[in-house]
Amino acid sequence: MKHVVLRAVLQAPPTAADFVVCAAPVPACPAGGVLAQVLFLSLDPYVGARLRGRHMGEPPPSPNVEPIPGAVVGRVLESDAVGIAPGDFVHSMMGAWGEVVAIGPGMARRIDPELAPLSAYLGVLGMPGLTAWAGATKLAKVGSGDVALVNAAAGAVGGSVGQIARLKGAERVIGIAGGPEKCGLVVDRYGLDACVDYKASDWPSGLDAALGGRGVSVHFENVSAAMLAAGMSRLSPYGRVVLCGLADHYQAETGSAQIPIGLIIVKRAQVHGLVVYDFYDQWDAFLREAAPWVRDGRLRIAEDVATGLDNAPAHFEKLMQGRNVGKSIVVVNAE
Amino acid sequence: MKHVVLRAVLQAPPTAADFVVCAAPVPACPAGGVLAQVLFLSLDPYVGARLRGRHMGEPPPSPNVEPIPGAVVGRVLESDAVGIAPGDFVHSMMGAWGEVVAIGPGMARRIDPELAPLSAYLGVLGMPGLTAWAGATKLAKVGSGDVALVNAAAGAVGGSVGQIARLKGAERVIGIAGGPEKCGLVVDRYGLDACVDYKASDWPSGLDAALGGRGVSVHFENVSAAMLAAGMSRLSPYGRVVLCGLADHYQAETGSAQIPIGLIIVKRAQVHGLVVYDFYDQWDAFLREAAPWVRDGRLRIAEDVATGLDNAPAHFEKLMQGRNVGKSIVVVNAE
Repeated sequence: MKHVVLRAVLQAPPTAADFVVCAAPVPACPAGGVLAQVLFLSLDPYVGARLRGRHMGEPPPSPNVEPIPGAVVGRVLESDAVGIAPGDFVHSMMGAWGEVVAIGPGMARRIDPELAPLSAYLGVLGMPGLTAWAGATKLAKVGSGDVALVNAAAGAVGGSVGQIARLKGAERVIGIAGGPEKCGLVVDRYGLDACVDYKASDWPSGLDAALGGRGVSVHFENVSAAMLAAGMSRLSPYGRVVLCGLADHYQAETGSAQIPIGLIIVKRAQVHGLVVYDFYDQWDAFLREAAPWVRDGRLRIAEDVATGLDNAPAHFEKLMQGRNVGKSIVVVNAE
Repeated sequence: MKHVVLRAVLQAPPTAADFVVCAAPVPACPAGGVLAQVLFLSLDPYVGARLRGRHMGEPPPSPNVEPIPGAVVGRVLESDAVGIAPGDFVHSMMGAWGEVVAIGPGMARRIDPELAPLSAYLGVLGMPGLTAWAGATKLAKVGSGDVALVNAAAGAVGGSVGQIARLKGAERVIGIAGGPEKCGLVVDRYGLDACVDYKASDWPSGLDAALGGRGVSVHFENVSAAMLAAGMSRLSPYGRVVLCGLADHYQAETGSAQIPIGLIIVKRAQVHGLVVYDFYDQWDAFLREAAPWVRDGRLRIAEDVATGLDNAPAHFEKLMQGRNVGKSIVVVNAE
């Protein structure tokens, strides 16, 4: 089988040339775990930080030895796990960029291929969807009357945040995304009320126009301190802010992103830090609510798909550059 | 009568020499309002910012013309207000540094001299107490099991925060204050579990010792971005943070105080901006809860008193320098 490793310790944000696809022995099935053939591999922005040791304190994988970490959906080849049998489909956050992966005890979840397309378990029903659901429903508690603003709105997390805010009864949901193609996706496919293209020179005026004089009651931040300040300056009193991630800063070389304390006080803002790990134990509750939305077409999916593990490095570079439109996925083996 | 004005537009944080005590005509009773003889004048840190136009966008008073604004407790001389009669005692946030003040419609509240000492309406039962109560009970929702940390803990707001946290069942309440005298007040009079002297060189170790391995579940910030970072770095997951004010920054010449976004995310913090104005309509509810605490000696008062309006400028300079121990008050007329 093949897997993908780093060529060397990274000195800069990763590009396709930093990865090597190479032959590797098929791993053994771990005690209490499963061995799975990877069908779909998820490419996610946090991995860019993870590969440089900048994500939640986790060390980067050893070059040329350890495969790149990543979430996967696979078909079980061997199982030593209770309740999981060969032939079952599983999702795991602890997979890797490989054709076959060994998943440790408790790290694989059985998934139902009847409920939703299998690749959805990497996106709207996967970690990005859980992130969006936790932020929108558990922290910000979006409900009727809310005016919600989300950036990276065409992305896997942002797209779900916007749609979940709408499904939860928000009065108005506005996205921010880069370029007309992404903005089209946000409005036409995800059904948000408006999408502001931050690559347009007058985008702050565009945002004001989209708000039409309303204040933002829920702001969901995925991008940067500058975007956060733009959203928070338009917050209504006691507006809720969810800090999910700062994609722009994952790659930054210097400094740390900051919020002005005065802005929080003047707006009486309620700011929440979100780490999706804390909600892994609510994955079943999330799926009970969100899977019917997917089945009924109310929570819609957009994917940016590459085929074959050989194409994972270039597809990841595309994601790092923000050129993906929809959830970035590699089809590793056909179902 | 006498009142106090600014000598000139301020170019720097105010000192005693920036004020002039001068004769002034007794004002007329405003339509719908009251004319009151000032018994007690409150000196508060926010006035230092207010005098330089740096508080909530309010303009500074005109030098030599408008008296310095301030909260007062007074005895009504004339009244055109419904429900307020001459001889009644009133509290107003819209008073001034004067021996007699005119208070506009709706800006004076009758107070009950039987319920608590009149000067308490400027401290634990006044705006500082309301600030503390709103932050502790409405935003942070302090309750049993909490480990609360508050700085400027000997001050009017911080002292009430600490005591209210204790009254609401917090498991452990720790103050931070400057110097042994203030720390003594915090522990011996306010009854907090511990007080850390931030003027001691090893105070962060002292804070860790006071926490005894526990995380902070509620942090109440009154001082500065640096103090906030010290508290937040010791926060337990999902700890609540109330941003009340930043006394150190009121006087700062440059820059704006910031919180690192990464710290909020890593701690899953829930950060609230507090502006006490929003809670003025809950003053009755606050008094119903807090006045019995004062009466029963469970919410204790400490005052730093000067006598005579002539001494207000020097007493204010003392407050600005943090040399006051307890709520800073001027006795303008004896009861």
